[in-house]
Amino acid sequence: MNVPVPTVADVGERALVARIRERVPAFPDWVTVGIGDDAAVLEPGRNTLEVITTDALVEGVHFDRAFVPPRAIGHRALAANLSDLAAMGARPRAALLSLALPDALPLETFDGLIDGLLDLAARSRIALVGGNIARSPGPLMVDITATGTVGRRQVLRRSGARAGDAMYVSGAIGDAAAGLEWCRAHGLPATTGPDAGDEPFRDAVARFLYPEPRLRLGWMLGRNRAVTSCVDLSDGFADAVHQIASASGLGAILDGALVPVAPGARHWFERNGRDPLMAALAGGEDYELLFTVPARRHRLLQALARRVPGLPLTRVGVMTRECAVVLRRDGRQDDLPAGFAHFR
Amino acid sequence: MNVPVPTVADVGERALVARIRERVPAFPDWVTVGIGDDAAVLEPGRNTLEVITTDALVEGVHFDRAFVPPRAIGHRALAANLSDLAAMGARPRAALLSLALPDALPLETFDGLIDGLLDLAARSRIALVGGNIARSPGPLMVDITATGTVGRRQVLRRSGARAGDAMYVSGAIGDAAAGLEWCRAHGLPATTGPDAGDEPFRDAVARFLYPEPRLRLGWMLGRNRAVTSCVDLSDGFADAVHQIASASGLGAILDGALVPVAPGARHWFERNGRDPLMAALAGGEDYELLFTVPARRHRLLQALARRVPGLPLTRVGVMTRECAVVLRRDGRQDDLPAGFAHFR
Repeated sequence: MNVPVPTVADVGERALVARIRERVPAFPDWVTVGIGDDAAVLEPGRNTLEVITTDALVEGVHFDRAFVPPRAIGHRALAANLSDLAAMGARPRAALLSLALPDALPLETFDGLIDGLLDLAARSRIALVGGNIARSPGPLMVDITATGTVGRRQVLRRSGARAGDAMYVSGAIGDAAAGLEWCRAHGLPATTGPDAGDEPFRDAVARFLYPEPRLRLGWMLGRNRAVTSCVDLSDGFADAVHQIASASGLGAILDGALVPVAPGARHWFERNGRDPLMAALAGGEDYELLFTVPARRHRLLQALARRVPGLPLTRVGVMTRECAVVLRRDGRQDDLPAGFAHFR
Repeated sequence: MNVPVPTVADVGERALVARIRERVPAFPDWVTVGIGDDAAVLEPGRNTLEVITTDALVEGVHFDRAFVPPRAIGHRALAANLSDLAAMGARPRAALLSLALPDALPLETFDGLIDGLLDLAARSRIALVGGNIARSPGPLMVDITATGTVGRRQVLRRSGARAGDAMYVSGAIGDAAAGLEWCRAHGLPATTGPDAGDEPFRDAVARFLYPEPRLRLGWMLGRNRAVTSCVDLSDGFADAVHQIASASGLGAILDGALVPVAPGARHWFERNGRDPLMAALAGGEDYELLFTVPARRHRLLQALARRVPGLPLTRVGVMTRECAVVLRRDGRQDDLPAGFAHFR
């Protein structure tokens, strides 16, 4: 017997907005007008600059409902934006959610997506203050705009690196790419929480589905003026190195032996006959931070590192006056491949 | 001979971003970080609140490339957001552009879209400070977030109407719906500028393709505290009346004889055997403002009306304590139909 699954088209736009409003916690007092008017109205932060970013997840490009659970879609859409705020040194403040929904989208998928988004929003102290819901005649699209605040002298740009600065990365890389491949091969994980997936790839799957934006680290780096530049790894490690180098008018030497490839990712890539380092460098959606540290700040950075326990900060290379971006490995030196770009 | 048309996939994401950057005028001095970093950074407005809104245009839902020229797609995507700012009484400030592009989208379409958007942005004094470009395996999507500023006591909510307040609408309604139908029937207008379409429907086509958000009016209404509530007509006149009534906990009586249906729209609907008033009330995307004015402010409103020459402000009804929203016409009184909602 086929019991029809309720879809978003069954309940309609207004009821969908109402479902979101019901789940949104009480607004902070700086939200003057929240969900439900022509626009949201916010009290500006005190003595801070406004940071604003937007990022979209498109079904069939950034995720596949066959192997990404609804909660993870909502989580990842917000995480991508929070990671951009982290990379600027900003504290999250408000988010707008713009959805384009296929008629046949199950209501349960909609609810799961909102739950995943609101869980991360609550933990990250960002208020969902507005948005838009439209129909999509094609894929599901989740477009989020996030705003935050940052002190005037605490903005982390990508353009401030200087020759001789050491290059650091937070955490370990490759898990998102390996987790994606695991999910693509195995289908929807048996559980939808952060312990989804099988050992030894459980961490990789969890970090692909529920990446943790490095908000505390980014904020600390900006507040302590410990770094000269910073980007997140949304389009992959290799891309991030190129971004900092190009924005700063410099080159870089990356030491392959120092790059922290996550153990699960290493295992997965090796098992599939691939070079773990190259796969991890190319893979996108590791929401770690890459940043440059001048020599005089190394001791400060070590002190800061102790304030983000469980998140290693690893020195992986150096910025150079010569403009080439190279990977040094096993005594050889090669151009570092470009990162991920859409339409390439 | 088939000369292949260059597509967005031919040039790639970074070149597309570069094409936008080249056309964006110099940033105002309150833009601390513009296009090209993880996020944009802005100096907050002085002694003002921040207003933020997002709105998306989805191909096949909000427009069809068969009869909407690229410039108009870009213009309309921004206009929808500016209209939301106008309805809050805000001055535009910064915009973020999030695009999901089909691989086969001609580069010329991309450029036209950006040109249309940037033309309206320049006239409206809103700075394009960032965004995102992704692939779409389905339709073209243009999602814009716009921010603005408004004085603390000058916010135009939809919830402030009181029983006895007069209901006013700016301009004339029905042109967007009639223009859409004309374009759907006739295909892409011969010219792509605001004089596209044939007489007597030229105005309707122009207002469908290039709607003019009522920024000056909205800002004046807020600044002079002339109104108790305000919304824009993005989802149609009937919807707007329901929105103000419902948010204010009131009813409304709309006088059908007073509703300013645009002449071209009236002509078009009559020619196609439809009731012009009902078609105009139901049609979306007339970016006019609907607002409520208490008796003591009528003279002030008349003075303000002289400061928006060419834009009539018409009294169309009254807010009532009784919660029904009714249309009075030819001595009869009927429930006003609900407006447009997605998935309905």
